[in-house]
Amino acid sequence: MSKADFKAVILAGGSGERFWPLSTPERPKQFLRVFGGESLIRQALARLDGLVSPEDAFVVTTKSLVAATRKELPEVPKGNIVGEPMRRDTGAAVALGVGMAAQRGWKPRLQTEGGDDPVIGFFSSDQMVAKPKEFRKVVRKAVALARRKDAIVTIGIKPGYPATCFGYISPKTRTFVEKPDAEKAKKYVKAGYLWNAGMFIARTSVFRGAFAAHAPELEKLANIGASAKSIAPAGLARLYAALPKISFDYAVMEKAKNVEVVPGDFGWDDVGSFAAFDKYFPHDSRGNVREGPCNVVEAEGNICVARSARISLLGVKNLVVVTTPDSVLVADKSRLTEMKRLFAKH
Amino acid sequence: MSKADFKAVILAGGSGERFWPLSTPERPKQFLRVFGGESLIRQALARLDGLVSPEDAFVVTTKSLVAATRKELPEVPKGNIVGEPMRRDTGAAVALGVGMAAQRGWKPRLQTEGGDDPVIGFFSSDQMVAKPKEFRKVVRKAVALARRKDAIVTIGIKPGYPATCFGYISPKTRTFVEKPDAEKAKKYVKAGYLWNAGMFIARTSVFRGAFAAHAPELEKLANIGASAKSIAPAGLARLYAALPKISFDYAVMEKAKNVEVVPGDFGWDDVGSFAAFDKYFPHDSRGNVREGPCNVVEAEGNICVARSARISLLGVKNLVVVTTPDSVLVADKSRLTEMKRLFAKH
Repeated sequence: MSKADFKAVILAGGSGERFWPLSTPERPKQFLRVFGGESLIRQALARLDGLVSPEDAFVVTTKSLVAATRKELPEVPKGNIVGEPMRRDTGAAVALGVGMAAQRGWKPRLQTEGGDDPVIGFFSSDQMVAKPKEFRKVVRKAVALARRKDAIVTIGIKPGYPATCFGYISPKTRTFVEKPDAEKAKKYVKAGYLWNAGMFIARTSVFRGAFAAHAPELEKLANIGASAKSIAPAGLARLYAALPKISFDYAVMEKAKNVEVVPGDFGWDDVGSFAAFDKYFPHDSRGNVREGPCNVVEAEGNICVARSARISLLGVKNLVVVTTPDSVLVADKSRLTEMKRLFAKH
Repeated sequence: MSKADFKAVILAGGSGERFWPLSTPERPKQFLRVFGGESLIRQALARLDGLVSPEDAFVVTTKSLVAATRKELPEVPKGNIVGEPMRRDTGAAVALGVGMAAQRGWKPRLQTEGGDDPVIGFFSSDQMVAKPKEFRKVVRKAVALARRKDAIVTIGIKPGYPATCFGYISPKTRTFVEKPDAEKAKKYVKAGYLWNAGMFIARTSVFRGAFAAHAPELEKLANIGASAKSIAPAGLARLYAALPKISFDYAVMEKAKNVEVVPGDFGWDDVGSFAAFDKYFPHDSRGNVREGPCNVVEAEGNICVARSARISLLGVKNLVVVTTPDSVLVADKSRLTEMKRLFAKH
């Protein structure tokens, strides 16, 4: 397929809470860079290499993060990186992405299919993919399917375990189910359900039709590119102020009938918390993951990230210890889901 | 008793390891100041108030700590604070203290007893005493006994529990026993043994006689004040270089026959590790002891000392977490006895 037939939108919101203090509201998760690697958002862009050129890559982020995002992704045209004036969940972010991607950069050209109705794919800025080649293969398949059918194609991840932190998709009924409890999760996995990784791929017209049918309050946003030449900040702010906070799953995917599922198995993870470090980074002989000056005596299974002062661990187990010049976090690994509670007290 | 009949020597060595990173080799335990309180060495001096005036208080410390000690105790005459040129354990420190206290400041005067043979008491710079009034009462008793008898009087602490980290004294046989194992400790407590708190009180002549009899290699040091007017640093260094590393307990007390024991029960503790904080400082409702900005969520029984960056604890139990600008310590409370192992790796 020609590159411009497909455009990718990276959704890069993120509050920075779950990786605090490494990430903060000013430098949320997608900017996370650990163990000498690239930031998650750079990885998200690099992963699309060969599928879209930087000119066809877009980022929807929050207003306050536009400058940092442009700095992090200098190869993406500045105008392709837009900040939402306020948080309105993924419903609004996808709608804005559709409006933007349809409007900018793209020029009609001779094509065997698609015409001026490019396929747009939505991806998250803060996920890990262990097998990017396989990822691209699956995305290509999904894009082809999206072009062929009047459907929103979602990539469902083959579950590695009965996770309770992801929604699921039934590939047979093509229905979305929300994050389950442990018992339900086991049933879902047994029944062949896939993880909902928040990857949605469809033609522009299909997205617009879905908003019109199921979330008319978001339709205007999705149609921005169809009329206006540019998005005036004041106009966008007015539009947003009136929008509901609603996820794209809930606003559209749970209602749409024209859903297709392409299964994927490419070592996907949403890097939901520090616990993910255990999967991605090397351990010492006692199961500690370390970055920076970490002095470890009789300590096991800890994640130790020293970004300022030297950390010394003595006899402790299964902790996450992170230091920055401003903050020190000491958390039990099993309690990472409660990270948000630290902020209520700040 | 008249003040000048009694002189006190504070032994202030200390390597700073057990309270690292709050204490360091440059600022060892005796300078530890927590929860808005005074340093341990200031407390040691203040505790003697009414027993000795600052002119009759002496400090034996290490060479590198003389300046810091003089700054911490400005009311003590500079010449009363002396630094050992090298570490030679408490045997040498007590001998030097005897030599110093006999030499300086003290002037013969009309007395009903004692003459120019003042009683000298040795105390540690890094201990806590919950009931200083009771402490002074016991010390007065010990001083009177020391003046009356040709004996070294030791104050034995009534054990609060069968500690394995202290030596014991049998008040009946007046014999010293070293740090026992748990089983022996129980037996000692049952038999009425007392903790050896390292407090020794005797007339100058008695100390000198004991060194002459049991540790002649230390006799010269104890006799310094008897001849010379001042201690020349080079002479002291030469003297020390030839000395054995030996504790006063081992060099003298375990061999001496003229030992008297005065029992004491004044809330004594040697503040051996961070665990002592649990005894001396107030707890929050979940048993955490906190100093500085410590944000605590579902965390229990921790000692949290924030001297630089804010500490956030999430779901952790029984840890010691200490931050300084240079270092962060995260240790399990039950492993504090292994603190030294951190330094082997530094």
